[in-house]
Amino acid sequence: MRSTALPRAFLAALLLAPLASAARALDEGMWLFNNPPTKQLKERYGFDVSAQWLEHVQKSAVRVSTGGSGSIVSADGLVMTNHHVASDILAKLSSAERNLLDTGFYAKNVADELKCPDLHLDVLWKIVDVTDKVEGAAAGKSTAEAGAARRAAMTQLEDEGKKSTGMHTEVVTLYQGGRYHQYFYKRFEDIRLVFAPESGIAFYGGDNDNFEYPRYCLDVTFFRIYENDQPFKPEHFLRWSPNGAADKDLVFVAGHPGSTQRLNTVAHLEYLRDVSVPSVLTRLMRQEVWLQGYSGKSAEHARQAKDDLFGVQNSRKVYVGRMAGLLDPAVFDAKRAEEKALREAVEKNAEWKAKWGDAWTQVERAQASAREIAKRYAAIGGGNVALGADMAGFAATLVRLADELPKESGKRLREFGDASLPQVYQRLYSPAPIYPEFEVMRLESALSLMAEQLGASDPVVVAALAGKSPRARAAECIYGSKLMDIDERKKLADGGAAALAASTDPLIALVKTLDPHSRTLRKRYEDEVQSVEREAYAKIAAARFAVQGEGVYPDATFTLRLSYGAIKGYSDGEREIPPFTDFAGVFAKAQERASEAAYALPQTWKGAQAAVAQKTAFNNVSTCDIIGGNSGSPLINRAGEVVGLIFDGNIQSLIGNYAYSDTQARAVSVDSRALLGALEQVYMAERIAKEIRGSIQSR
Amino acid sequence: MRSTALPRAFLAALLLAPLASAARALDEGMWLFNNPPTKQLKERYGFDVSAQWLEHVQKSAVRVSTGGSGSIVSADGLVMTNHHVASDILAKLSSAERNLLDTGFYAKNVADELKCPDLHLDVLWKIVDVTDKVEGAAAGKSTAEAGAARRAAMTQLEDEGKKSTGMHTEVVTLYQGGRYHQYFYKRFEDIRLVFAPESGIAFYGGDNDNFEYPRYCLDVTFFRIYENDQPFKPEHFLRWSPNGAADKDLVFVAGHPGSTQRLNTVAHLEYLRDVSVPSVLTRLMRQEVWLQGYSGKSAEHARQAKDDLFGVQNSRKVYVGRMAGLLDPAVFDAKRAEEKALREAVEKNAEWKAKWGDAWTQVERAQASAREIAKRYAAIGGGNVALGADMAGFAATLVRLADELPKESGKRLREFGDASLPQVYQRLYSPAPIYPEFEVMRLESALSLMAEQLGASDPVVVAALAGKSPRARAAECIYGSKLMDIDERKKLADGGAAALAASTDPLIALVKTLDPHSRTLRKRYEDEVQSVEREAYAKIAAARFAVQGEGVYPDATFTLRLSYGAIKGYSDGEREIPPFTDFAGVFAKAQERASEAAYALPQTWKGAQAAVAQKTAFNNVSTCDIIGGNSGSPLINRAGEVVGLIFDGNIQSLIGNYAYSDTQARAVSVDSRALLGALEQVYMAERIAKEIRGSIQSR
Repeated sequence: MRSTALPRAFLAALLLAPLASAARALDEGMWLFNNPPTKQLKERYGFDVSAQWLEHVQKSAVRVSTGGSGSIVSADGLVMTNHHVASDILAKLSSAERNLLDTGFYAKNVADELKCPDLHLDVLWKIVDVTDKVEGAAAGKSTAEAGAARRAAMTQLEDEGKKSTGMHTEVVTLYQGGRYHQYFYKRFEDIRLVFAPESGIAFYGGDNDNFEYPRYCLDVTFFRIYENDQPFKPEHFLRWSPNGAADKDLVFVAGHPGSTQRLNTVAHLEYLRDVSVPSVLTRLMRQEVWLQGYSGKSAEHARQAKDDLFGVQNSRKVYVGRMAGLLDPAVFDAKRAEEKALREAVEKNAEWKAKWGDAWTQVERAQASAREIAKRYAAIGGGNVALGADMAGFAATLVRLADELPKESGKRLREFGDASLPQVYQRLYSPAPIYPEFEVMRLESALSLMAEQLGASDPVVVAALAGKSPRARAAECIYGSKLMDIDERKKLADGGAAALAASTDPLIALVKTLDPHSRTLRKRYEDEVQSVEREAYAKIAAARFAVQGEGVYPDATFTLRLSYGAIKGYSDGEREIPPFTDFAGVFAKAQERASEAAYALPQTWKGAQAAVAQKTAFNNVSTCDIIGGNSGSPLINRAGEVVGLIFDGNIQSLIGNYAYSDTQARAVSVDSRALLGALEQVYMAERIAKEIRGSIQSR
Repeated sequence: MRSTALPRAFLAALLLAPLASAARALDEGMWLFNNPPTKQLKERYGFDVSAQWLEHVQKSAVRVSTGGSGSIVSADGLVMTNHHVASDILAKLSSAERNLLDTGFYAKNVADELKCPDLHLDVLWKIVDVTDKVEGAAAGKSTAEAGAARRAAMTQLEDEGKKSTGMHTEVVTLYQGGRYHQYFYKRFEDIRLVFAPESGIAFYGGDNDNFEYPRYCLDVTFFRIYENDQPFKPEHFLRWSPNGAADKDLVFVAGHPGSTQRLNTVAHLEYLRDVSVPSVLTRLMRQEVWLQGYSGKSAEHARQAKDDLFGVQNSRKVYVGRMAGLLDPAVFDAKRAEEKALREAVEKNAEWKAKWGDAWTQVERAQASAREIAKRYAAIGGGNVALGADMAGFAATLVRLADELPKESGKRLREFGDASLPQVYQRLYSPAPIYPEFEVMRLESALSLMAEQLGASDPVVVAALAGKSPRARAAECIYGSKLMDIDERKKLADGGAAALAASTDPLIALVKTLDPHSRTLRKRYEDEVQSVEREAYAKIAAARFAVQGEGVYPDATFTLRLSYGAIKGYSDGEREIPPFTDFAGVFAKAQERASEAAYALPQTWKGAQAAVAQKTAFNNVSTCDIIGGNSGSPLINRAGEVVGLIFDGNIQSLIGNYAYSDTQARAVSVDSRALLGALEQVYMAERIAKEIRGSIQSR
């Protein structure tokens, strides 16, 4: 817990650490597995990273379809991830009578493991550089046409890749358009729930302590991969470290950082600062308040909204941090200096200048267009007509499927390409429970926001509301719709354009009203912003490689990356924060803040207080470079063994979207010793503890 | 509590009741005491309202400087108001060691009554129509000059009125500019705290149940007026009803409704709908989230933020309701029809047309200007450079005092006229505690919002942030300022312009940066919006009187009004809600929602459960026409006796800013029987109970 700051100490903490610069050796980078930081690891830590080590880690790492990371940690396909990555699934497996978020879950026997709806896990198997093919398709075309050609080429590569390998595959845009790599994944769709603790300890301290340190969270969930109804036997999995990590140890994170904007130009960051991030913040704070209002109606309402509320509060804290980062002059000063140096280097070389010199003004132009489009685009639900409610999402998918499927795969909206269709249908036919009153609330909020942002006399708003108040319109659309019924969704999807044209479902009608406007703005965005950016950033990337060498990592793209660093405490300006917390600490904290619900321990922990080894390391911090999406990543030692489970960054790390710093920013993990300790001493989950212990190799 | 709505019933509840129309007899109106609804009361309730009755009620009613209403209820100057009207004062009387909001307060002896900082009470003594003087000053001038002349005339009338009578006096703009009345008040500044319950029962159900019904809130605080260090002996006070009110009884509310917009033109309401209300909502939701974040840091942080958080959540719920009202087509349909009828009547009469015909397009023009100014004006803190933190408010007052005082009273900004200066100094020299960390948070939030709304490269933002992040700048300004110290504020105020020019206080410097921009926008607002509106609404009011007669009440202006109606339940679309709740109900509710902190009863109530009379009426609802500002108003019977204490409207009443309805909208009161019952059976506050009982007259 942070004590009440004293003025002087407080001001000291505000002196921002110097930001990353080329001259300084830092544990920076979210590195590609096909371009790892070999030199840095050797120089800084004397570690020789081998191809085998990389392959082993890569093929043990898992991408979780709820938007996080994980890893395979047993010979029987046990998968470790965060509770907060699994919470969407836990909520979907819950009902008014069985609240897995509150009570946790443990399958005493393998037969008790619970099949999960809407979940798949991907393991990265192969990477192919397809830059030439994507850029080849665009060659000689106007900017907007080139953008369309690139998208078509990417879809085609995915369709062909899937056909030839049977694997799920995605073409990834790296360096904002500087490179295109095709990733091939083994996809697993039969995933079962093995163990989850109570959210009371998984998210100990709640929103208060989120992104704070010292922490005491058991933010873990174990799933198991099944193939042919049997536990999967993986080629690769991570063994457990016998002793965990010590202070200053070199550690690695293999996971899927979601997105960063470190290579963005200054103009692009200004757009984020002045338009995009403020708009997202406004939306998140609004959702938070509406979800809290809904939750207050009863315990059951609170249960229905809990996972959404967690997600929104978590994002809000991230975006407050991002906004603070963008408003920190140090970030822009560093960025401006870096950009100036690169541009000067380009200007000095006539050939470079001719090839790449206009890239920065191109990005500026793209941002000017983005500024024009942004407000309206966001207000009508962005490129996907997203209106908050799950059922409105089904309607949007159905409307678009009917329009897109008759087209050639490469000509469709990217997310409806043949290779992507399985995910589309998985979401559309989700058996997860739907709560009509919750749907109405979310749709009302979205419709009201649309009116508040565009004005109620805007023709699109008038059409969407159809002469009713947002509340009446939302109630009419939800209660009048049949889309709660999976069979109805299947019938409409199977019936295609004709069925959609004949449908009188009010949610379908609502989406049809908005769809043309969304498509128009999406086209403008793709032509005037995205395509221009791709072209310009390809130039900037080329300039960067020419000037700085290939040792530059691309911004995060929710694809597998390797980060590294050391277990290391830090000073928060008032005092030294040690790298580890322990079990004793959580009991002390529960006592210190006994009056606050967020700090109440579950019964399991209260009961086990006397039995647990008090000095067991609970959470730890390291200098590894992570960002949202890395949640659930394994923290690994030199031997490739699990020493922890990434679940958070501290508040100082939230600036990481724009720049890395190791002065105060830290990645926060559940220590591997706490994971085993809790399974054995608190939950008596012998079966799982044994399975994990079985992999430990004596050295 | 509202049960989980079923689809059909839910839809039924959404069918909005027909709005007020001239043809329909309703308990509508916030009537002037010098233009009471004599005819309506006679026709609807057979009640002859006498001049004595009116004078007695008027002079027993009290305006509370924290923004609410109250009444004198004993021969010894006992004043009854709401806990939530008093909570600002309760917070100021609290410290980390003595938390009056949580624990409540009871002065067992008169000597224990606690002197309140920053509080004054006003009793309306006299009303004079000064329309001719105000409009006379404006005659023959251009619109902007006329506006300035009106403001100067109002200030002059106030200065002269104060000088000649010694009373506090305010010129009130009625009918948006159709009339100007001068109000003379007896002002009381030695106010002491007598009794307050715990906020746990005063605000039972918390934000969840705010604006809901059935309710169980003991939302009361008793103050006492002192004069010459002795309890004040009033000429008028309200006696207590021996039996309380019954279903269908005629009741009255004498209080100070804050503001309504029922006479606004359609264009003016569209501005509120599309610009003003959405902007306020965004700001409130943001404040709510920031205050919750601060509160989560520790119990002491929560205590510091509690009253602000309550206020923000309360306003947010009001504004969500207002937004819903503005987005309800029924409101605009009714408004458009009413406006069309009035305009047609004017058009048909050549003289009227010439005098008043252009008024509606004038208002439209004013709204177009308002749309241009609004965003920037709000972002820099409006006309008063309001930056969230108390200390920033002191700085703004000091900067402006130095600039304004040398001018003639009538030429100053209105709030710095001679007659208003005592309030200015009362606020500036407030001894209320200041919490630096809380100040930093609020200032940071305001500075960040300014940057988010205007963009960080806006010159005003650049100047305000002075090259720092909002957080660093806020910390620098608060921790570097001496304005926490009352003597320092006095020194700067006494030193005038020279002292201000010499000051190096960083908060003063911050305000100086913003002040010219705020003044420029304020002038534009006064000239292009307010002055135009005044002129136009004077015409519309004249037209309204000509067409509809003088029996039109003006919109609310936080001045004394009389409302009337009946004790009456309603149907919420699912079931009939009876008009009264009882003590038994709160114990049942506490049991039903035992797991939620908002429904936990204080120890006093738990302990008294066996002793209290279970059937005692607790809260009640009536059709009286109220709005924010009416909180704390007495609910009075025909005999002028207290039968309740207004503390809320139900959620359906929030549309009341724009239109009155009696179908579902209700005013919510603490029943007078619950007030006495709680004093006698729960709090053993015999001294106060006796004082109240002493006034009961047997009939």
